[in-house]
Amino acid sequence: MINIAVFGYGTIGTGVVEVLNTNGESIAKRAGDRINIKYVLDLREFPGDPIMEKLVHDVNIILEDPEVKVVVEVMGGVEPAYTFVKKALLKGKSVVTSNKELVAKHGAELLDNAKERDLNFLFEASVGGGIPIIRPLNQSLTADEIMEITGILNGTTNYILSKMSEEGLGFDTALKNAQNMGYAERNPAADVEGHDSCRKIAILSSLAFGMQVDFEDIYTEGITNITDMDIKYAKALGAKIKLFASSIREKDEKVYAMVAPVMIKANHPLYSVNDVFNGIFVRGNVIGDVMFYGSGAGKLPTASAVVADIVDAAKHLNKNIWTIWSSKKLELTDINQVQHKFFVRISGNAAENKDKVKKLFGEVEEIAVDSLSAEEYGFITPLLSEQEMKGIKESVAEILNVIRVRF
Amino acid sequence: MINIAVFGYGTIGTGVVEVLNTNGESIAKRAGDRINIKYVLDLREFPGDPIMEKLVHDVNIILEDPEVKVVVEVMGGVEPAYTFVKKALLKGKSVVTSNKELVAKHGAELLDNAKERDLNFLFEASVGGGIPIIRPLNQSLTADEIMEITGILNGTTNYILSKMSEEGLGFDTALKNAQNMGYAERNPAADVEGHDSCRKIAILSSLAFGMQVDFEDIYTEGITNITDMDIKYAKALGAKIKLFASSIREKDEKVYAMVAPVMIKANHPLYSVNDVFNGIFVRGNVIGDVMFYGSGAGKLPTASAVVADIVDAAKHLNKNIWTIWSSKKLELTDINQVQHKFFVRISGNAAENKDKVKKLFGEVEEIAVDSLSAEEYGFITPLLSEQEMKGIKESVAEILNVIRVRF
Repeated sequence: MINIAVFGYGTIGTGVVEVLNTNGESIAKRAGDRINIKYVLDLREFPGDPIMEKLVHDVNIILEDPEVKVVVEVMGGVEPAYTFVKKALLKGKSVVTSNKELVAKHGAELLDNAKERDLNFLFEASVGGGIPIIRPLNQSLTADEIMEITGILNGTTNYILSKMSEEGLGFDTALKNAQNMGYAERNPAADVEGHDSCRKIAILSSLAFGMQVDFEDIYTEGITNITDMDIKYAKALGAKIKLFASSIREKDEKVYAMVAPVMIKANHPLYSVNDVFNGIFVRGNVIGDVMFYGSGAGKLPTASAVVADIVDAAKHLNKNIWTIWSSKKLELTDINQVQHKFFVRISGNAAENKDKVKKLFGEVEEIAVDSLSAEEYGFITPLLSEQEMKGIKESVAEILNVIRVRF
Repeated sequence: MINIAVFGYGTIGTGVVEVLNTNGESIAKRAGDRINIKYVLDLREFPGDPIMEKLVHDVNIILEDPEVKVVVEVMGGVEPAYTFVKKALLKGKSVVTSNKELVAKHGAELLDNAKERDLNFLFEASVGGGIPIIRPLNQSLTADEIMEITGILNGTTNYILSKMSEEGLGFDTALKNAQNMGYAERNPAADVEGHDSCRKIAILSSLAFGMQVDFEDIYTEGITNITDMDIKYAKALGAKIKLFASSIREKDEKVYAMVAPVMIKANHPLYSVNDVFNGIFVRGNVIGDVMFYGSGAGKLPTASAVVADIVDAAKHLNKNIWTIWSSKKLELTDINQVQHKFFVRISGNAAENKDKVKKLFGEVEEIAVDSLSAEEYGFITPLLSEQEMKGIKESVAEILNVIRVRF
C-alpha cells in the first residue's frame, strides 16, 4: 500500500478521489501496489462527505508523517502551493501537481529539488488536462530536435471562438454562453486575455528546449478583440480563427514564443480542434508533425492525468525520472523581428483603399465579403515583421483589426 | 558511451543511423550518454557507405560481444528476427524493435524474457510509425480503463481512400497512384487486405487490456471492395470511408476487435486523418477521448520512434520498464454477435426496392445520389448484428456492397 495525501479538495481533488475509487483495482495493477489516500488537506469542512475521515487542516500533520510517500497538489495558484510543495520535497515526498502557475514559475527549481533527493516532481495535468503531452515530450520525442510546439491550450477560448464561428455569435454573447455552460469563469480574464495559455506554453517550451522560458517574456494577446466581422472574413477564406500558443525555432536556431489568435486553414492539424477540446501540435526535425488531442480541462480528464502521475510516482519511489529543464534562461527572439502574414480590415471600401493599401503593404490578397464590402476592405498582407505591422497600425487610424495568418 | 548494434540496414536501419548522426548531441543529453553504433548486421554489402566499417554478417559476433548493451532489430518478419532477438535478450542485451509481426506474435514472451533479466524489450515504432502511442498507453493512460482503441494504422490504405475521396478515383487507379508515389508495395496485399492494420491493433489491444490478443482472432476485412460508387454515397452523407482497426469494450465488459472499412462523419476525431497519416483514438472511462496523430510510416519518423526507444533503453540499462501484457489469452466476443448500422447499396432503383428493403431491414435512412438513382438504391440500416447482415447479404444477390457505419 502506498500512502498519498491530496492538497485541495476542489474540482480536481474530488476528481482524483473519484478516479482512485472507480479504477482502484486496475490502477493498483499498474502501480504495483494499492494507492491509499491517507489525508486530504483543505481549510473547509465537507459535512456528510466520507472524505471527512481523512480531512486535515494543518499541512504539518502530512509533512511530518513519514508514511506519506506522494503529495498531490491540486490547490492551484503559486502560494501557498509553492511553500507546501517545496516542504514536501524536502521531507522526502514525491509531488504530483496540476498547477500550471506553480510549474511555470518554479518548475526548474522543484525538479532540481526532487532530483537531488531521488524523488519525483510530476505535472502532466498542468498542460492540456487529460492529454498526455508532458510525458511524451520528455520520454517519447527524445530523438528529435523540437522545431515547433503550437497548442490550442485553453478550452474556454476555443469554445468561444468555435461558437462565434459556428453560430455567428459576437464575442460577448459567446462568452456569456460559455459562462452559462460552466466553461468560463465569472471573471474570464485569465482565459480570454491569454494568460492561461501563456503559462502552459511556457511549460511546454521549457521542456522542449530544456531551458527556462519565463512566461513573462512571452508576447501574449487574447481573443477579446476578435469580432463576428473577422469570423466572416475567415469563413470567406475557408479558415478558422484559433488562439494559438506557440514556440517556434527559426532558421537561426533562436526561438520565439507567442500567444495570439491566428487564422488557419483545414490543412493545419489543429483546424479540427473545436469546442472545449485542446490540441497540441509538435514538429520535430526527424519525426515530422505529430498532434495530441483531447479534453484540455474538466474534472475527470484532469484527474486522469493526475492519477497517471501518481502511478508513475508510485512506480519510481526512490528513483528520479529524468527531466531536462535547466534553470538557465532561454533567450527568446525579440518578437518585433518575427515575420508573419497578417489579415487586415480597414474602414472604407476597396476603391477608397486600394492605392493606400498598395503603398503600405505592396501586393495584397483581397478577401471579398459581400455584406461588408461597402464599408470596409479586407486583405492579407505579404510577410511583414511584427514591428512593421505595429508601426503601420499606429499610423493608420482606419485599420479595424489585424490577425496573424498561418497559411 | 553506450554501444548498440543495428540488425538490418534497410530503410529503417539507415534512418536510425541518420537520426543518431543528425541529433547525436541532444540524444546524448537525453540518454545521459553517447549512443555508439558498434555493429550493423546485414547479409548484403554496402560498398562506399561508411557503414561498411561496422558491418558484420554473423549475428554471433554481436551476441558474444558483452560491450553491446542494446540491439535494434529493424529487419522485419518473424524469422530470423525472433531467434536473434530471443538470443540477444538471453545474452543480457535490451532490444528495441520496429517489427510488428514479431511483436504481435511474440510480444508477451519477449517482454517476460526481458523482465526476468532486468532488461527491456521496447517497440514504440511497431505501431503508428513515429506517433508516440505504445509509451502513452503503458505510462500515461494508467488511471483509465480503456473502453476503445480505434486507429487508422496503415498509411497506404489511408492514402488510397483519401485519393478516391478527393479525386474521385477508382480503387485500382488510386492503388497504382500509391505505388507510383512509393507508398504502396508492388504486392500490396498486406496493406490493402488489412493484415498490417490487424497486427498493429493486436499489439495495441494486448497493451490496453493487459492480455494476449491474437491477431488471428481479429476479424479482418480490407479495402479492395470499396468502389468510387461507395465514395459518392459517403460524400452525399458528408461522410468519409476509413479503414478502422478497433478494439471496443462493450457493456458486458467483453472486447470485440475488428479491422474493416467504416463510414464516419466530421465529428469523429479521426475524420481529418488523411493521406499517409495515421491517427489513433483512445477512449478511457475517466479521461474521455484522446487522439494521437502523425506520420505512420516513413524512414525518419519511424527511426525517430526507434531512437526514442534506444534512449529509453540506455536510461534503463539494468531496470525493467514495467509493461503489462500477460501471455494469458483475452477471449474476444464472437464477431457475429456485434451490432452495427450498415450502409447498403442494392441494384435497382428506389421504387423497385423499397418494399423488399423494408421487409429485410425495417425503417432505413435513404441516401440520394442523383447520378446513381436510376440503377441502384442506397440506404443505412438500423442496428443489426454481423450475423444478421451476413445472412441477408448471402440471401439477397442484388446487394452491391455493405459498409459499417459509425455515426
